[in-house]
Order: sequence, then C-alpha cells, then structure tokens
Amino acid sequence: MKQFNKQAASLLIAAGMGLAATAGWSAESLQDVMKRRGLSQQDLLAASKTYVPTGKRDDFVAFSSGGQSGQVIVYGIPSMRILKYIGVFTPEPWQGYGFDEESKKVLAGGRIDGKDITWGDTHHPGFSETNGEADGQFLFINDKANPRLAVIDLRDFETKQIVVNPIMKSEHGGAFVTPNTEYIIEAVQYAAPLENKKFYPLEEFNEKYRGAITYWKFDRKEGLIKPEQSFSLELPPYSQDLSDAGKGPSDGWSFTNSFCSERYVGGIEKGRPPYEAGCSAKDTDYLHVINWKKAAELVAQGKAKKINGHNVLMMETAIKEGILFLIPEPKSPHGVDVTPDGKLLVVAGKLDTHVSVYSFEKIMAAIKAGKFEGKDPYGIPVIGMKDALHTQVSLGLGPLHTQFDSKPCVAYTSLYVDSQVAKWNYCEGKVLDKLSVHYNIGHLMTMEGDTMKPKGRYLVALNKLSIDRFNPVGPLQPQNHQLIDISDDKMQLIYDMPIPLGEPHYVVAIEAAKLKPAVRYKVGTNSRTDKPHPGAVRAGEEKTIKKGNKVEVFATLIRSHITPETIEVEVGDEVTINLTNLERAQDETHGFTVSTYNVHASVEPGKTASVKFKADKEGVYPYYCTEFCSALHLEMQGYLLVKPKGWKAGTKTLAKGNYTEADYKATVKKVVDTQAIIDSVVAYITSVNYKDFPDVVAMVEDAFDQLGKTKGLKEKHEGFAAKKDWENANLWAEQIWQYQVKTADLGLRAKTYLEQNGAKKVK
Amino acid sequence: MKQFNKQAASLLIAAGMGLAATAGWSAESLQDVMKRRGLSQQDLLAASKTYVPTGKRDDFVAFSSGGQSGQVIVYGIPSMRILKYIGVFTPEPWQGYGFDEESKKVLAGGRIDGKDITWGDTHHPGFSETNGEADGQFLFINDKANPRLAVIDLRDFETKQIVVNPIMKSEHGGAFVTPNTEYIIEAVQYAAPLENKKFYPLEEFNEKYRGAITYWKFDRKEGLIKPEQSFSLELPPYSQDLSDAGKGPSDGWSFTNSFCSERYVGGIEKGRPPYEAGCSAKDTDYLHVINWKKAAELVAQGKAKKINGHNVLMMETAIKEGILFLIPEPKSPHGVDVTPDGKLLVVAGKLDTHVSVYSFEKIMAAIKAGKFEGKDPYGIPVIGMKDALHTQVSLGLGPLHTQFDSKPCVAYTSLYVDSQVAKWNYCEGKVLDKLSVHYNIGHLMTMEGDTMKPKGRYLVALNKLSIDRFNPVGPLQPQNHQLIDISDDKMQLIYDMPIPLGEPHYVVAIEAAKLKPAVRYKVGTNSRTDKPHPGAVRAGEEKTIKKGNKVEVFATLIRSHITPETIEVEVGDEVTINLTNLERAQDETHGFTVSTYNVHASVEPGKTASVKFKADKEGVYPYYCTEFCSALHLEMQGYLLVKPKGWKAGTKTLAKGNYTEADYKATVKKVVDTQAIIDSVVAYITSVNYKDFPDVVAMVEDAFDQLGKTKGLKEKHEGFAAKKDWENANLWAEQIWQYQVKTADLGLRAKTYLEQNGAKKVK
Repeated sequence: MKQFNKQAASLLIAAGMGLAATAGWSAESLQDVMKRRGLSQQDLLAASKTYVPTGKRDDFVAFSSGGQSGQVIVYGIPSMRILKYIGVFTPEPWQGYGFDEESKKVLAGGRIDGKDITWGDTHHPGFSETNGEADGQFLFINDKANPRLAVIDLRDFETKQIVVNPIMKSEHGGAFVTPNTEYIIEAVQYAAPLENKKFYPLEEFNEKYRGAITYWKFDRKEGLIKPEQSFSLELPPYSQDLSDAGKGPSDGWSFTNSFCSERYVGGIEKGRPPYEAGCSAKDTDYLHVINWKKAAELVAQGKAKKINGHNVLMMETAIKEGILFLIPEPKSPHGVDVTPDGKLLVVAGKLDTHVSVYSFEKIMAAIKAGKFEGKDPYGIPVIGMKDALHTQVSLGLGPLHTQFDSKPCVAYTSLYVDSQVAKWNYCEGKVLDKLSVHYNIGHLMTMEGDTMKPKGRYLVALNKLSIDRFNPVGPLQPQNHQLIDISDDKMQLIYDMPIPLGEPHYVVAIEAAKLKPAVRYKVGTNSRTDKPHPGAVRAGEEKTIKKGNKVEVFATLIRSHITPETIEVEVGDEVTINLTNLERAQDETHGFTVSTYNVHASVEPGKTASVKFKADKEGVYPYYCTEFCSALHLEMQGYLLVKPKGWKAGTKTLAKGNYTEADYKATVKKVVDTQAIIDSVVAYITSVNYKDFPDVVAMVEDAFDQLGKTKGLKEKHEGFAAKKDWENANLWAEQIWQYQVKTADLGLRAKTYLEQNGAKKVK
Repeated sequence: MKQFNKQAASLLIAAGMGLAATAGWSAESLQDVMKRRGLSQQDLLAASKTYVPTGKRDDFVAFSSGGQSGQVIVYGIPSMRILKYIGVFTPEPWQGYGFDEESKKVLAGGRIDGKDITWGDTHHPGFSETNGEADGQFLFINDKANPRLAVIDLRDFETKQIVVNPIMKSEHGGAFVTPNTEYIIEAVQYAAPLENKKFYPLEEFNEKYRGAITYWKFDRKEGLIKPEQSFSLELPPYSQDLSDAGKGPSDGWSFTNSFCSERYVGGIEKGRPPYEAGCSAKDTDYLHVINWKKAAELVAQGKAKKINGHNVLMMETAIKEGILFLIPEPKSPHGVDVTPDGKLLVVAGKLDTHVSVYSFEKIMAAIKAGKFEGKDPYGIPVIGMKDALHTQVSLGLGPLHTQFDSKPCVAYTSLYVDSQVAKWNYCEGKVLDKLSVHYNIGHLMTMEGDTMKPKGRYLVALNKLSIDRFNPVGPLQPQNHQLIDISDDKMQLIYDMPIPLGEPHYVVAIEAAKLKPAVRYKVGTNSRTDKPHPGAVRAGEEKTIKKGNKVEVFATLIRSHITPETIEVEVGDEVTINLTNLERAQDETHGFTVSTYNVHASVEPGKTASVKFKADKEGVYPYYCTEFCSALHLEMQGYLLVKPKGWKAGTKTLAKGNYTEADYKATVKKVVDTQAIIDSVVAYITSVNYKDFPDVVAMVEDAFDQLGKTKGLKEKHEGFAAKKDWENANLWAEQIWQYQVKTADLGLRAKTYLEQNGAKKVK
C-alpha cells in the first residue's frame, strides 16, 4: 500500500495535480471543490471526460430530431452543449425562418392540400453518405404528423427544401439514406387510402387501406430532392416503421420493419379492445425486404401506376417482378439495422426479449432457391424466419434499437422496459455488458454508428423520461440524453443532458472534422437558393423604388446603421425591404424588424434577405437591428413612416442640434486620441506572430475594414467646418469615432486572444 | 519540495484520487484522460466546479431571454444545461403552444391592431419579488419589437398572459419589478406618437414624438396583470431604455436611463450623418427619476389623460406634481442598477469609460432643496450631476451593465468593447479585478444579483459573439454565456455555454430551492387559466357529441390508448377534441395530433387541452400520441374519418383476427408468467427501505395504478372464452398484459433507482 501510494502520488504530481499547482489561481483546491459539491472520484473522472475548456472544441457533432418542435437540434459531444437549433418545419423567428420571403418559399414547399402546416413531428435525421460513410454534406429529416421530408445543407445549416409525400397520411420511418445518397427512404406509419382525400370506411381496412415506402431521388449537385424522379412501393396495411438501406454486399436492397401486421382496427369506445392489445397480439410482425435498385429500373420502364400524379409500383407488380419479400420478425419491433459490413440485419422486437440477427446471404439464398414458407394475405412471398436467421440473443425487456461500435461484431441495443443499454456480440450472439439508464431509453446512437465506418468511443442513450434527474421545471419535463463512454469493456455513464425542446426521437452524430461549414456568404446571396439575390445592392447603391402601390427598398446593413434610415410609404402600400449585410467579418450578423408588422430577418455576413408586408395602418413604426452587433447596436435604427393617402409635407424642417465650434474641436480631439489607442493596439499585434492565428488575422482584417470606412469623412467634416456648419462638422467627425470604436473593439479582442493563446514576440 | 509532494499526495489520496480507486471501473485513469484530451489542471478544476453528476441537481436556475425567438430559456447553474424552453410570444408546437385552443387564447391577448403577431424580441426577464427578494412565483418578460409583456407562472412554467402596451410602438426596458411586485415597469425604446395609428412627420419629432414608461399593475393572487389599473407617464422623445425600481430607502421611486437624448433624426440616405453619430454626439444623456407611488396616487385622483383608452400622466402634470426629474448620466448608457441596500444607483455609459454611482440620498436632498441646474426642453427639472454623484470610477471601454455580489460594496460591470468583466467596489470607488471574456459582453448576471439579497458565487457573462469558441455551425453562430466563479478575490472563468436560440439579451437566476413547481395538474385543469376545463371527462365518460355541423369529442389519454379510437365526422364539420390526460405519474405526458390538420397538444398529467379544426377535406386521417410514453406508444393511435356528405355505411363488418383457443391460452400463460416477474420485483422493492425514496414511492403508486387498470379484464376475457369468442378473449387477455408491461417497466425503474441509490434491506 505504501509503495502504491508513492507511485500514485508521483503520477498525480506529474499530471500537475498537486496542491501547489492549483493554489496559484484559486483559493479553493480540487479537494475542496469535490468535498463542497459532493463529487466522487468517478464523478471527477466523468467530468474530465466531458468538459470542453474555453476555446477548445467538441470531437463529434450530433444532429437530433427536435420531435414535435419540428426542428433539428445540433449539439457537441462529449460536452453535450447545444450549438444550434435549425428551423425546419416550424417558423423560427430568430433565424428569420418563416418571417423573411426567402424562407417562406421553403416552408411553402411543405404546404398540404393548399394550406400552411406550421409545425412538424420530426423523427429520424439521416446524413448524406458517400460509399456508405457519413460525408457531412447534407442532413435529411422527416415529419411524422404531416408526411414530409426536409433537406438541410450543412454548408450553412439551413433548410433548403421541404417535400410533401404524395400518397401518405402519416409516416415515421424517414430519413434513411442509400450508401451514395441515391435515394432517401421514407415509410408509412399508419395505413390509409393512398388516393388523396379519398374516404373508405374502416370495414374496408384490409382492402382499401395501404402502407407504402417512398424512395426520394436526391440530386447531390443541386442539393435538392427531385420529386418527379422519386417513386413509391404500395405495401400491405401493416404499420411500416423504420428502414435501413443495405450496404456493401447488400447495397441495392432496403429493409423496413413493421408492427400491427395483425391489421387490427381498434375501437375502445365501442367495447373493442384498444389498438395496443390488437396490434401486439401475435408473436411476429413482418420485415420487408425490397430490391430498390430493380424497383427504380421497373419505374423507369414505365411499370408504375400514377397515384396523385406520383409513380407507385403496385404490390402485384412488385411480387411478379420479384423485388418484394417478407420475413417474420419478433413482436412490434422498432427499427432494423444493417451491420457495418452489410452482411447482417438486426431487428429488436419491443415486446420480445430477443434481438434477431438475419443473414443477408441466407435471405438471398432463400430468394434464389424460391424457398418460402408461404405468402401473406396480399400474395407477398414470406421467407421462413429460421431460413434467414443468423442468430437470436435474449437481451432483456423492451429491446428497441441497435447501433454499432468501431470494434468488430460489437453492437448496442436499447432496452425500453428495462431502462438499460445492452452491449452484445452479434457475430457470436452473446451479451457482453449492461448499463442502467434514466429512464426508458428509446433509440440510442453511436458515433456514425449506422454507417459502414462507426467511430466508437461514445454512445448516447435517448431516454424518454427524466423524472428525477434534473431541477424541476413544471409538469412538462425535459428528456434525458445520457452520454456513455464505450471505449472500454465496461460501459460508463458520464453525462446527463436535459433535452429542453420536444421529444428528440432519434439522433445522428458525425466526426466534427467532417463538417466544414462556411462563415459567410458571397455578398448578395439568397441563402435558401444559394443564388445571387435580385434585391442585393452594394454600399452606396441603396435605393427606394415606388411603382403604383408597391414600394421596394434596397437596403444595406453594417455596423451600426441601416441604409436607408427612413422609409416613407402611403397607407395601403405593399412594402418589400431587401436587406444585404455588407459585413465580411465572421459572426457579424444583423437582424431586422419593423415594429408590429410581424416580419423579421436574420442577415448573416453576405446574405441578402427580404421582408414583405402591407403597410395597412397609418403611423410611425420604428425599425431596428435585432442583433447586439456593436456598442452602438441600439442606435442601429430607422423609421417607417406610413402616411395618410395624399399627405403633403409642411414647411417645417428637422431641428438643429445646436453644436458649437467647441463641440467640433472636442470631437476632433477625441478622434485623434482614439487613433493613438488603436495605434498602440496595432503595435502590440504586429509585434507578435499574429499571422499564425487565423482567427486573429480575420479580426485584424475586419478592424481595417472598419477603419477603412472612415475614408473621405475627414474631408467631409473639415468641409462643413470650413462653412461653419458645426452640426454636420461635429457629427461627421463623430462618425469617424464610431468606426474607431468598432476598430478598437476588434483590436482589443485580437489582443486578448493573442495574450491568452501564447503569441510570441517577433522581430 | 519533497515534503510538499508527500503532503499533496496524502491529501489527494484522502480525497480518493489515487489510481487504484479509479482502476476499478475504468481502464483509463484521470491522468490518461487529461493527457488524451489536453486538459490542464485549471481545466480539471473548472470541470469539477461545473459538472453535475447524474441524479444530482443544479444550485441555481437561470431564466434567459430567448431574444428574437420570442421565448424564455431555462438553464441550470453551474452545469449550464438548458432545462426548458418556454413558449411566450412565439407558437411552440412541442408544448402545444399556439396549437391548442387554450394557449391560442393567451397568444390572442398579444394581437396588435387586430392581427396575430407570431414572434417577439424578448429582452429582459424579471422575477416577481417579495420585500425586494426574488420569490420564485412569477417571471415577466417583454417584447421589444411589438411592445408587449408576458406573465409566466413558475408553478408550471407556462405563459398565462400577454398584454399589449397601449401607447408604445417599440420598447426595450421591461420587465422591471417593484419590491413587492406592485408594478412591472416597461419603458419605450424609440419615440413615436403615442396615439395609435397617428402619423406625424419626423420634422415634428420634438413636438409630437414621445417616450413613455408604463407601470403595469400586477394582481399576485390572480397571477395576472390588470391593464385597467395600469398607467403610463408621458416622457420626452429620448430613447428611454432600462429601468430599476428603488428598494429599501428608495422604494416608491424608479429610475430609467436613456440614450439619444440629442433627439437626433438620422437620414444617411439623404446625406445626413447616421443615427449612430447623431445619437451619441453629446457626452451625457438623462437618467429619469420618478416617484411611482405618488404617480399611482395622481392617477387614482383622476389626473391622468386617456390616450388610446389608457391612463397617461402627462409631462406637464408630472412636473407640476413634482414626481419627475432628470440627472445627466454618461454617454449612451444601458441600464441603471440600484444597489442591494437601495442607497445607490449605478449607471454605465457605453461610450464613456466610467461607471457613475449616484446617491439616492443626495438626489432626494437636491429635490427637497429645489436645487436644479436647469430644465430640459420640456420643462423637467434637471439635477446637477455633481449634486447627485456618490463617486465615478473609470473601468474601461464600453461599460454596460452592473450586477451585485453577496459581499458588501462589490459590483461587477460588463465592458463591451474591452470584452471584459470588471469587479469593483462601489462604496470606495476602486477597481478590484478584471477578467477577459469571449467576446463582446452585453449584460452580465449574478445570482439574484439585482435584488436586495444577492447570492454571490457565480456570474454569467452574456457575450454576443462566440466567433472561435465552438464547433462551427454555419454563418449564424451561437452566442456565448460564460460562467465565472466569483467566490474568490480573483474571478475565474469556468464554463463556455453556447446559446443556440436567439440573442439572449438578459438573464435572471434564482436559488433552485426557491422554485417549487408542480409535477401534475388537478385532473381536468385548463393550465392556461388554472381553472377546471369544461371539456374534461373521467375514465369511462368519454363521448362524442354532434350538434349541426359541430362535433365535440371528450377524449382521454392514458398509457397506451386514446379513447375514442375512432372519430367520425362529415366533411365541413367543425371538430373540437378535448383531451384529458388521466395519468397521475410524474412525467407521463401524452401528445396529440391529427395528420395534416395543423393541430397539436401537449397534455401533461391532469391537464385538459383541446384542439379545434374544420374537417374540410374528405378522407382518412390518423391521429396519435406524439410523446414516446410507453413501449406501446406507437400503438396509441386512432383514425379521424371524414366522410363525404350523406355517406351511408355498407353492410361490411370489421375483419376478424382468426385467433384460436391456443392463442388465448398462450396469452393467459404469458399473463401468469409476467405476473411472476412483477411479484419478484415487488418482493425486492418491499424488501428494502423504498419508502425513504419519494421518487420510488411515486413510481410504485404509478405501477399499482397501471396494474389496477386490469380490474375486470380477467372476467371479461374469461366471459368471451366461455362463449368461444377467441378473438375477444385473446385480445382482452392481451390488454391485461399491456398493463403488466407498464407495471413491470415502472417496477424495474424503481428497482434500478433503489440499487443505485443505496437502498437498505428492511425486516
């Protein structure tokens, strides 16, 4: 023991953990803190595994469904800090989403039966893939409540497109991506007639209600789904659920599980047992096995039927052409997951204790041999379970979803009822470890764990009920994403993350290094189309054009003024305001709103956005920048003047400011003094190796940008001074100082950065 | 050194930091992790100060403005984890906010000029106070863009009321609360004519444009603002900004700062210097000093003028009655902050390096003595700055907002341009410490730091630009809330929190122990009014009533079925569905939506919510529970059947399930086997001191609730079996098993909890 203590001590001290080392910056030592906060050594170890210090970054970035918020939540792993909330199906005002004209067009793509749908029930995000690996280019996500699919471009984390499923009334199982993002797979949830607005009674459920799977064609170059090149398969009215695309040897095939293959119709109010009883009465449901490559060929050959104008391969055709098969799968499963090597498929039945591992090779052999145990009521060949099984493993109660490790043959399955994660070997069919989570885990997620190259290291348990885990916040509680370290043999729970926004049904995560988003747009870009915006102008080109009752403003935004600062219209005019952010600096977003007219734009550097409204009430309506963009942010304002029809201006002029020569001279002196401060900061920055710090180089560029804006202003204020117009002289001198303040702001930020990041003196 | 190492080692080992201690559960030691992740000892200390282990809770709860999201963000301190996102001014579908009828009524209170405003620009949250201390009962927050104020009840964290300011077109400085929540103070931002829809040209800015402050009367018992008992003060067209209410000796007075007291009107498009130049041309603006208690008396005496139907005390009256005064304050300040003892007021001018500390006693003395240095252009007496000043301290560039420590005389001020926090002594007027933050801090916030009893320990820097701090997420970046430990003499930066949702302008935080929210509602409660909901029913009372073209459904929700499971209407019917959640268990929320009809409800235990829509399209529309509420969540479904007008049912009946006696017997066996599992879990739970764990007691109650629902079902299935109706026999037996699964789920959760939390065997 003595020997061990010595060894431990020297190691700890080598790691800088001695008391002396901490005493220098804090009176409270590590031991003090642990005692005060009741932390165990395990807690400290977990803290060390998840804490990301200031200025450092997370290793993985997770994209979580926002559940009934209709959005996507982006968070870092291992810190579990939410980095962004992306507006997808629901208007999101702080992003201008649904409040500027460009994003309204995206949302309009999601209208159903001619009406706006202002929310979504997002479920399964999926990354675009290249050769079966997540490539960090696009993210897709579905809406269960109003069957739709959205495309998010990961260059700017903005939603670019929403498409409406043409034949479904409900879906759940999207978005699943084929290995080279040829198609995005979306499956029905609750069966309904495929024809739009067509009523059939429930008594005709078996005959007229149908399931389906849609294969959405994705054009990677355009970054858009092509509805006219997409197609669907008609399926029996089993509640189709989640899918996975084959990969490697199974590429070209896709797999979709189902529940309620009993085709039970509830009616508790009529004395019938409820859906939950009838939909889980049998021991097996059906796994759907589909040859999507051949299906696409059949559609190209004109073998599809048009339903609601959309190509649907009917079951009859699919059976005849041999592209659709079923295999029994254990009771009420949620998800089918193809192993990274593409050879096996894992299905977990929520109401069975087993996970079932199917062999793609065996499935193909059965199909090839025409060895079926029978047909379902619609004539689809059913492959015998034992003819397709590789192995089955009893894991526990409520097995639900499976993800894979970077280590061969290692999988993780969530156990909803047991509130556990099971680690197991799917090659040999044995359980390796179990860990309790808090509570009722739905999906789980490993790093790129549903691709051909899982990254291991972390697992996130998507627990549905947090109950006692967090500070109480009323009857509606957060859910709990628990981070689990899977790098060792034993799983270790290391972080509890409350999810404050909707039920985050599923999450995908990617190595941070694979994401390379932009920090600005090319000046004048419509970010939703990635094309030049016709409303864009450059500095000095701002204008207001009135044609009839239409007023169009071409405005610019830059620290800290909006040009124009006055917009004059007549009541009843239709007003469009195009806003171009002239900033080049990272993070210098400006916002824009007009009081009480229910418009808002978030205009990042280079972006052009526009807001449109009818000026239907007389009066004076301030507009302003809604981002705290500089020290003079509050002064970034203007007035929309909505004049009565036919209003004539009087002779009154704007009041003068009563500035004197002394005021002017004081301002000029202030400008000179401030320049001295700027010079001293510049002297410091150029005295060190600032060019080795890209962030500082950007700040310095921005600082000189700002200072550059003073060009011509000296002549201007001196000109006014020569004419003894002290107001204009003083204010234009003041305007130089405004730019100086912004320059100094940037310089000081750069200086701090250099000091804190070990900049070195250069000659 | 040797001696020290020994000492350090023994201390570390005493703290359980030895290698052996960690080796038991992880192959990777603390040192390994630090090395792998590049953590310094300071990082580890910071991690230990902020990490909250699973099952433990945060010490403080922060309520942050959600900026242009229009919402409120709730997060825990020190973990900086977001716990909830409260829908306030913007529809928030996952909460049903704006998608159920009850919350639509709250949002309707915020309509302006008869139109919905579907977002807000939230700025300053404020807690209700009792004797100058935050009491944890209510939170108020304002909307700058569309001048409104909202009331959030902290019993359930729901928004209960939105009121529209009757005379403003823009505001910024709300919500500030008087020491016993008599009034909530809201001040104009950009001046405009006070009369609604009244146009005056900018040339009449000085004469016709006005500022104002509104004092909203709050009825604590009802939890509502009383607009008819509220009043405003007419003020000069200076951009009034933030306020603070006096406390202790200064109770009865309030203070409001301003900028652009130059009354400058910009017009850069016409060659005039922009607002930013003209609004900051003078060295001082005006601090407004108002006797609100006397103002309220004057209003009660009928001395107010009605503008837009609202009581406004005109400047003339306020001057005559001696309730309104001005004091010069340094250039373009943002905020005035009264010290905890109520004796001093701190103002920081963003374009001045000083903070100015004013003495309330001196101000009162000057007023009493009638000692003024002059009047402003509107005749308001101006107190000399030097007659009111206690002290001035030069802090740095861009001082903005001040908060207080629990230690006497200690204040913290944000420095926007310097990107620093300054710690200083406001009694003696000296700087104590400075800390760099990342970057451009706006407001800052200490724990209950704007009340009479600040709690010290933590400070949050609300930085506007995060730039390089986080993983990149596109041009629109998160902001950065940095947590600073202020318990020691030197401030220590310990955590960077990305803010992923709007510009969180200001935040307030409260001791977690002061919040005591409910976990459920009394059954049948309309949560927005806290009154019984007329649409509520109990189990067994569900019904559908049709009158003319109006269909009203009285439905219930419970794991895992919706009653009714079929809703039949004719096309064109107006459908109202009332939903009562019958659960008593904590966290057992159910959601509800009908496919493509754009409605959604989040129904927490006990709540009754309703959705309403016109069934304007024929067809079949699934409805389902949108919360992952149990293992059978997906089966919690039903169908809305929208029939063509005059549709007549055929003779076809629902298909039978072809169940046999063997199926029935197998189900009965499963029920018996499952009961054995339940019994064994119950045996474990009752073998330990589970009654010492309130969360477990709740789970056990819930488990017996679920099991209790099987009552009568055994007789039912046996009755059907006697009649050889194997379908009904089997399915009702299956329904027993469904409840058993939920019972087992709860029991296993309780068991895990007990095992992990050191439950002890009892006799």
